[in-house]
Amino acid sequence: MKAAVIGGTGYGAVELIRLIKIHPHLKIGTVVSNSQAGNSFSEAYPHLTGILEQPLEKFDPKTLAEQNDVVFLATPSGVSSRLVPELMEEGVRCIDLSGDFRLKTEEQYEFWYKHPSADRAYLNQAIYGLSEIYAEKISDARLIANPGCYPTATNLGLIPIIRTNLVDFESIIIDAKSGVSGAGRGLSLTSHYVEINENLKAYKLGKHQHIPEIEQVLEEESGHPITVSFTTHLVPMTRGIMCTMYVNLKRNLSTLEVYELYKKFYKNKPFVRVRPVGTIPATKEVWGSNYCDIGLHVDERTNRLTIISVIDNLMKGASGQAIQNANLMFGWDESTGLINIPMYP
Amino acid sequence: MKAAVIGGTGYGAVELIRLIKIHPHLKIGTVVSNSQAGNSFSEAYPHLTGILEQPLEKFDPKTLAEQNDVVFLATPSGVSSRLVPELMEEGVRCIDLSGDFRLKTEEQYEFWYKHPSADRAYLNQAIYGLSEIYAEKISDARLIANPGCYPTATNLGLIPIIRTNLVDFESIIIDAKSGVSGAGRGLSLTSHYVEINENLKAYKLGKHQHIPEIEQVLEEESGHPITVSFTTHLVPMTRGIMCTMYVNLKRNLSTLEVYELYKKFYKNKPFVRVRPVGTIPATKEVWGSNYCDIGLHVDERTNRLTIISVIDNLMKGASGQAIQNANLMFGWDESTGLINIPMYP
Amino acid sequence: MKAAVIGGTGYGAVELIRLIKIHPHLKIGTVVSNSQAGNSFSEAYPHLTGILEQPLEKFDPKTLAEQNDVVFLATPSGVSSRLVPELMEEGVRCIDLSGDFRLKTEEQYEFWYKHPSADRAYLNQAIYGLSEIYAEKISDARLIANPGCYPTATNLGLIPIIRTNLVDFESIIIDAKSGVSGAGRGLSLTSHYVEINENLKAYKLGKHQHIPEIEQVLEEESGHPITVSFTTHLVPMTRGIMCTMYVNLKRNLSTLEVYELYKKFYKNKPFVRVRPVGTIPATKEVWGSNYCDIGLHVDERTNRLTIISVIDNLMKGASGQAIQNANLMFGWDESTGLINIPMYP
Amino acid sequence: MKAAVIGGTGYGAVELIRLIKIHPHLKIGTVVSNSQAGNSFSEAYPHLTGILEQPLEKFDPKTLAEQNDVVFLATPSGVSSRLVPELMEEGVRCIDLSGDFRLKTEEQYEFWYKHPSADRAYLNQAIYGLSEIYAEKISDARLIANPGCYPTATNLGLIPIIRTNLVDFESIIIDAKSGVSGAGRGLSLTSHYVEINENLKAYKLGKHQHIPEIEQVLEEESGHPITVSFTTHLVPMTRGIMCTMYVNLKRNLSTLEVYELYKKFYKNKPFVRVRPVGTIPATKEVWGSNYCDIGLHVDERTNRLTIISVIDNLMKGASGQAIQNANLMFGWDESTGLINIPMYP
Repeated sequence: MKAAVIGGTGYGAVELIRLIKIHPHLKIGTVVSNSQAGNSFSEAYPHLTGILEQPLEKFDPKTLAEQNDVVFLATPSGVSSRLVPELMEEGVRCIDLSGDFRLKTEEQYEFWYKHPSADRAYLNQAIYGLSEIYAEKISDARLIANPGCYPTATNLGLIPIIRTNLVDFESIIIDAKSGVSGAGRGLSLTSHYVEINENLKAYKLGKHQHIPEIEQVLEEESGHPITVSFTTHLVPMTRGIMCTMYVNLKRNLSTLEVYELYKKFYKNKPFVRVRPVGTIPATKEVWGSNYCDIGLHVDERTNRLTIISVIDNLMKGASGQAIQNANLMFGWDESTGLINIPMYP
Repeated sequence: MKAAVIGGTGYGAVELIRLIKIHPHLKIGTVVSNSQAGNSFSEAYPHLTGILEQPLEKFDPKTLAEQNDVVFLATPSGVSSRLVPELMEEGVRCIDLSGDFRLKTEEQYEFWYKHPSADRAYLNQAIYGLSEIYAEKISDARLIANPGCYPTATNLGLIPIIRTNLVDFESIIIDAKSGVSGAGRGLSLTSHYVEINENLKAYKLGKHQHIPEIEQVLEEESGHPITVSFTTHLVPMTRGIMCTMYVNLKRNLSTLEVYELYKKFYKNKPFVRVRPVGTIPATKEVWGSNYCDIGLHVDERTNRLTIISVIDNLMKGASGQAIQNANLMFGWDESTGLINIPMYP
Repeated sequence: MKAAVIGGTGYGAVELIRLIKIHPHLKIGTVVSNSQAGNSFSEAYPHLTGILEQPLEKFDPKTLAEQNDVVFLATPSGVSSRLVPELMEEGVRCIDLSGDFRLKTEEQYEFWYKHPSADRAYLNQAIYGLSEIYAEKISDARLIANPGCYPTATNLGLIPIIRTNLVDFESIIIDAKSGVSGAGRGLSLTSHYVEINENLKAYKLGKHQHIPEIEQVLEEESGHPITVSFTTHLVPMTRGIMCTMYVNLKRNLSTLEVYELYKKFYKNKPFVRVRPVGTIPATKEVWGSNYCDIGLHVDERTNRLTIISVIDNLMKGASGQAIQNANLMFGWDESTGLINIPMYP
Repeated sequence: MKAAVIGGTGYGAVELIRLIKIHPHLKIGTVVSNSQAGNSFSEAYPHLTGILEQPLEKFDPKTLAEQNDVVFLATPSGVSSRLVPELMEEGVRCIDLSGDFRLKTEEQYEFWYKHPSADRAYLNQAIYGLSEIYAEKISDARLIANPGCYPTATNLGLIPIIRTNLVDFESIIIDAKSGVSGAGRGLSLTSHYVEINENLKAYKLGKHQHIPEIEQVLEEESGHPITVSFTTHLVPMTRGIMCTMYVNLKRNLSTLEVYELYKKFYKNKPFVRVRPVGTIPATKEVWGSNYCDIGLHVDERTNRLTIISVIDNLMKGASGQAIQNANLMFGWDESTGLINIPMYP
């Protein structure tokens, strides 16, 4: 089957291309970049010299639909909302890595993203692609809203406990840390080497567009209204997200009891590793893989649960999960082509 | 005046030596390292070639007291508790950078540090050297327990609000991040370049020995029993600590109101910069300086205050504050010799 | 077929394990670490949790030979020279990643390595595994001396021009730069994060044990005695080697002419990419892959050729080339299992 | 005395400001940035909050000359050539950190810089500010062309040997490595964190504009025509330059003999440290200081001298040397205000 990639020369696109190249059932079809159409892909990414020399093409929904079985959109928010309707009218399935189809209401989107929402009809069709939680719906989807990087790490970490009655729903605090590749390939002072190396920054306090995405999922999974505190930090490294999460427990639980609850929850999920009691995952331990690793600790002094969840933001936080969703969509085993051994060191 | 440095070739010691060298009223006296006595200091630290060629000496309290006006101890915990009494009997003033004299009871120390405490008589004499808060006591001290790096950043960030009645004292969460120099020059896999570069790790969940130090100060300042959640992370950088702190407010406050409270609190304190509303400090913005910069944000959705405080762990978090305390102790202006322009970039 | 790995928990071993796991014809057999026998491999490397839980075993040549088809030795120099004879007597094929069987004479080895050489009988049997150059001999080998990281990058960059009569053989200068993983997992101040981060160091001037290995190959390939200047530098990154090489040309040549000579030389070699005129490879462009990329530039002002060659030191510089050699040895396509798309970014 | 800084918010300017602030005889006068005039300096650089709040001003030569005793220009090449004549007509002394007044002929400048040269009259007046070599001329100068970062490290490393008859002048090879701050604060993909972290790149082979500057000095100092091979590399760190230089010796010399020659040459130069035989400087050992450290090694196998010289590119390679030149110009001790203890770690 052929997979198109729209989003030219961003980091999401280049990771998708790597994953499609090693996938046993997928082949690279069209690669779209309006701004660089005609150039070869390896000019923008010399590491692909001799591997992907095909020219970048202009966006043309009709041809795209004819020549590809699925289209991955790794475009900035505000772009997919325009392209997806054109593609779906041509009948091709879409997996959108941007935030454009994740929120259920136009109002929410426009409040947090500060530009016009996608059309409600498409929001309704879009299936939220948190693979471990919504596998069944994903398998029937024609349009998948691939989750954000922070919401993936956060929600996989919180859902098992949030589905119980053991927590104070008002107490959820998420202290999130990300490598710089999450900010993309676009130039800015906050991605400038000299400003970021040997530096740690917090950003977008209380304003991050992933807040409503996290809350929407947690509300659905818990059945309760949920408002979280969510703070993001930029760490001097390329890949990796860690979310350190704090939840007040309503009754005494040991770390072991929480561990067993999580272990059971993720029993048949090949990409979630609940770490043994006493061990905490580090971001490099999932680097280059599609894993989400989760560590747990109950502080008996405060009766508060600390959950630490790590992912590779370009893999489970973006392109890896997109491939996992394609696998589910096409009825393949969800780990097909996702060779899953982290690169270490 | 002459200042001795005990602690040979650790990062605390080498930073003290830099600061003493540029201090207008202090001169390097004895530099002690039992394990490397006889070697020149610049062998261990070639950047000091031609700057500090004097030989390292063995510990001898009598000579130390005769030849120096103050002794800085940058020794591991469990060492100062033995050396300080010998030095004080000889009548020399001591500023101890380890944790040995910070906690008020032997029980607390032994529970968290897992080895024998210093003698109660010396615990009683020791003045806790959080310069901005205890300046008056410090000026009379003969033994200063210089604060830990995390407690300095945490407590300077929390004290202004904790002294009011505006917060829920049970809600305090501290998500702390540190560069690797905090772990010292001793070899270990968790300071091995390849394991740390491009990696983010959490460590010592619920077990960090700085927890009781933080709580002891907060209890004293608030007049309430306080138990905090405190999580530490290792960030791939050399210097810098950021503490992201979460506190539930008991009534509605705007970020501006909190800012004004902090601004007033630190009015005459040259080393604390409360950042204007809407800006948040990054660790590199205090790199190499003795500043503690504080950013504030009230999330109106949750009525929770987020406080972000940053320091250079080797400066305000260790040697810089030690010099500041020496200044207070000797009656000099507290910023004497602490040329205070961060190195950037 | 089953592959054993000796060398327990070093970086060479862990990369071999990753590559064997994804190889279609190889399976992990025995994993040997005398010092950690009985422990599970994933204790030392938590990123392998759930992937390689098998216990580490003690070295036992008989069992190793019975249960494995090939043994990879990723042991320090001075160890393989003892283990390989015992293994070969049991009839199992060995691929040694250390320097113990690379040099042709005991004298050379002992001069540069400062400890006893392997037995001459084994030196004679060992085939030097620079895959692109000695593929034929490798396919018949029972013992392969896998090349060093620097010699691989250097010799692949120099051989095409050194085989001609176009160069002054006395003029060869190799300015080599490596990431820190080349120094292994053993603790030392020169691999300590704080000493290496934001630092660039030269080391072992004129004393590096890879000098005789480089010269031995160049002499064989050129038919001339060759003495090189070789300087190594430690760069603050984990993976990657770049060798910048300078050679005086005996007559005028354009960059294009040299490019075509190289292009022809490596025509059917899937792992060497000669970069188009005007482009120069960076280390990250081969990260995680088995490529050696080569850039060329003739400076017409000095009539000197600059050759820049880059590899991933753990891949083409160690474990990747070892797998490539195993492929050649077993008659498989040399790129089998070496999914060769660099990880970027 | 008052010092103006033109060049707004580049790294050269911000380092100058730090150095002027701590200088005992200089005060910050006007700070010029046409593009950000009216803004406060600390908006661009929050680390200067409370330290430099003065507004940036537009370029006005008359006012600048009236209100300042010296003007430092940290502007891009092609800008100073326009501004300096206007300033000098107003009678104020100028220290230019760009390349605009370093080369002696317009032709050379235009060949290498690819845009129009400064006027010959000003080229003639400009004194090349390599402080250790041209101190006398500098003390009389009204216009100083502050040397480039690479030429400073290179020429201080080569001049002592090049002044003798011991070397083959055709054999000089300079393999140069720099941190990223040398590329400035302007945004570009080659300064983008994700592209540079964990990466090593060579750039501008045979085309670097510092080549003619290096050769001009070496020719003057040796009295021979000199053409060098010069290759630059970008290292994933913020500050630091290392030049590894190779020179063929015409007769046998020991490392010790060369060391003594260098030691004597730099006897009274406070900012050059010739390192003892057997030790080689690393870039971090001069970090934040105005030192140039030099290591020496004669390879007896090839009779080639390797010289390794390191500087902090923003200090001795730019702003530090500019202050040193100002000291010489005003008749102060050349190390005035240049507190010279490297920051380590």
